[in-house]
Amino acid sequence: MITYKAIEWLDEINVKKLHPSPVVRMIDQRHIPHEIAYIDYTDAAGVADAIRTMVIRGAPAIGLAAAYGLAVAAAYGPEEPGALKAYLALEAVVLRASRPTAVNLFWASERMLKRIADPTLDSADDIRKAAITEAKSIDAENLEMDLAIARNAFSLIPNIANIYHHCNTGPLATGGYGTALGAIRYAHEQGKKVYVFVDETRPRLQGARLTAWELQQMGIPFTVVPDGASGHIMRTRKIDLCVVGCDRIAANGDVANKIGTYNLALAACAHGVPFYSAGPSSTVDLATPTGDDIPIEERPAEEVSHIGTVSLTPVGAAVANPAFDVTPAEYLTAIITEKGVAYPPYTESLKIYT
Amino acid sequence: MITYKAIEWLDEINVKKLHPSPVVRMIDQRHIPHEIAYIDYTDAAGVADAIRTMVIRGAPAIGLAAAYGLAVAAAYGPEEPGALKAYLALEAVVLRASRPTAVNLFWASERMLKRIADPTLDSADDIRKAAITEAKSIDAENLEMDLAIARNAFSLIPNIANIYHHCNTGPLATGGYGTALGAIRYAHEQGKKVYVFVDETRPRLQGARLTAWELQQMGIPFTVVPDGASGHIMRTRKIDLCVVGCDRIAANGDVANKIGTYNLALAACAHGVPFYSAGPSSTVDLATPTGDDIPIEERPAEEVSHIGTVSLTPVGAAVANPAFDVTPAEYLTAIITEKGVAYPPYTESLKIYT
Repeated sequence: MITYKAIEWLDEINVKKLHPSPVVRMIDQRHIPHEIAYIDYTDAAGVADAIRTMVIRGAPAIGLAAAYGLAVAAAYGPEEPGALKAYLALEAVVLRASRPTAVNLFWASERMLKRIADPTLDSADDIRKAAITEAKSIDAENLEMDLAIARNAFSLIPNIANIYHHCNTGPLATGGYGTALGAIRYAHEQGKKVYVFVDETRPRLQGARLTAWELQQMGIPFTVVPDGASGHIMRTRKIDLCVVGCDRIAANGDVANKIGTYNLALAACAHGVPFYSAGPSSTVDLATPTGDDIPIEERPAEEVSHIGTVSLTPVGAAVANPAFDVTPAEYLTAIITEKGVAYPPYTESLKIYT
Repeated sequence: MITYKAIEWLDEINVKKLHPSPVVRMIDQRHIPHEIAYIDYTDAAGVADAIRTMVIRGAPAIGLAAAYGLAVAAAYGPEEPGALKAYLALEAVVLRASRPTAVNLFWASERMLKRIADPTLDSADDIRKAAITEAKSIDAENLEMDLAIARNAFSLIPNIANIYHHCNTGPLATGGYGTALGAIRYAHEQGKKVYVFVDETRPRLQGARLTAWELQQMGIPFTVVPDGASGHIMRTRKIDLCVVGCDRIAANGDVANKIGTYNLALAACAHGVPFYSAGPSSTVDLATPTGDDIPIEERPAEEVSHIGTVSLTPVGAAVANPAFDVTPAEYLTAIITEKGVAYPPYTESLKIYT
């Protein structure tokens, strides 16, 4: 039974704590699994800071944070309607700057600003209500999309299944039900016997820290494994399928996802294990022809060279820290979105399922 | 210029420090790269403890430690020849128990005991001299074997080469010149322009900690990369070859080596990158038909779930920590030993080059 939420809008009396005024509450993901702490935000600058410092991460969850960030900014913004709209446009800039490569951040703040720009909203109260309602709609649609992905994946998961997973794609990453991990969760909730092999996912260890914790919350049995051991595990154990998320999918079906995904796909391919990528159809970018056209973010060396304050490499050592890799379409058995399951050739099927 | 030694016999006046009595000196590998500290041992129990607690590691280096452990035990043992021989047999038992799966440990202590058993050694002084001489011979032969491996690998390395390496196979691991890393070092010393991509090698991070430090000492440029990124690096950079060590090679050419080796081989195969394993011919075990017959040691979960005192996984999480994996022979371009370069079919070539 899941009792946590990555991000939540609180504007009513809450059983745990009184909230006479609205707040955006986030679980602080930096401290999971060692500490489950929540932080309340009452302005966009605070929310932007939460995104920047990775209190919240995961593309869909970041989009939700931008939406609620603007909603809470609207709630406490100026009384004069014109001033309020101008204020929110500025706050959107602050939010967008928090992680400049996150597509969902732009998408969500654009959608919020479009709603707020509605000329029929002529009082501050109307604007506030519209902003809050829009953010809640994004939240609800996001959850529904995750559930649709999970339902679409259901028939691909055997009744008894050893499943390999990479990075983190659960409710912490989406703010909803989860995508790849949502598919696993749904199968479990429907009574299938699933067991998960969790790639620890260096360098940030989202598998070892977040996915392991989420699987514990879901009551799903699992084993955490160093990334380099997936080939060995597939050689010596029966693995039924791999399912991972996606950060961007090119028109030809090449999938950009967390670094290490491609290596897992290579191991799956060598052992005839089906390999699926699951995510919202908004991740499919038909304007990007192939994976070669997807820029790969290089993140700070310290994520590799240090764990917490512990230094791993010698002083002066060069370190590569590509945040994502591209798994060529030929390694993907299918791509699962809320609209259906796309099979090769992806240049055709992705047009239908996006 | 290499100025460190994993293990060293000191019985003469040393420029750094006076040694009126012999000692076995080891660099404490647990603290590399953060601290370069040496520990001197004057009995076998101390050396056994050094092996057990990983002051020294790497199969050939452990063998050397056992040899010098018995030499130093001989130096300080009883004066009566019979008592000295009995004492050394007992000390060998202590040394062998330090890491029960290390084949080199048995091999080296057996060789030392055989030498000591020579009935013509009829004074304590003769036994002491024989033991010390034998340990020094093992050391010298070990270095010569490493150099022969490096020379045999030389023609396989282009004049300008991007080389991928896994785990640690340098002088720290062998006590000599290094095996896979020795091949890279030799090419560099002979004027080839080598650049090394260093798999960090979770869970114990021998690549990030030890190989990176050794490459710095050798003046060879390199980049440390998380294990999961090798596919991405090979997709986006020109890699000329991979070279790794070996812990045990089956008669059919299947190679057991540090966990993560197989995943690197899969990435190399997908990108047409030659993949070599280098090691002494004693690593080839013709009595083991295939890799499936090689038992894989499972090491403590804490090596994965913790880094130092920092816990990574949630309390109660199951963790897999296989120490080795098997790379099937079909992924190996060649196997390099001190006797030559073995190509497929290995069932034939390994008989010649072992």
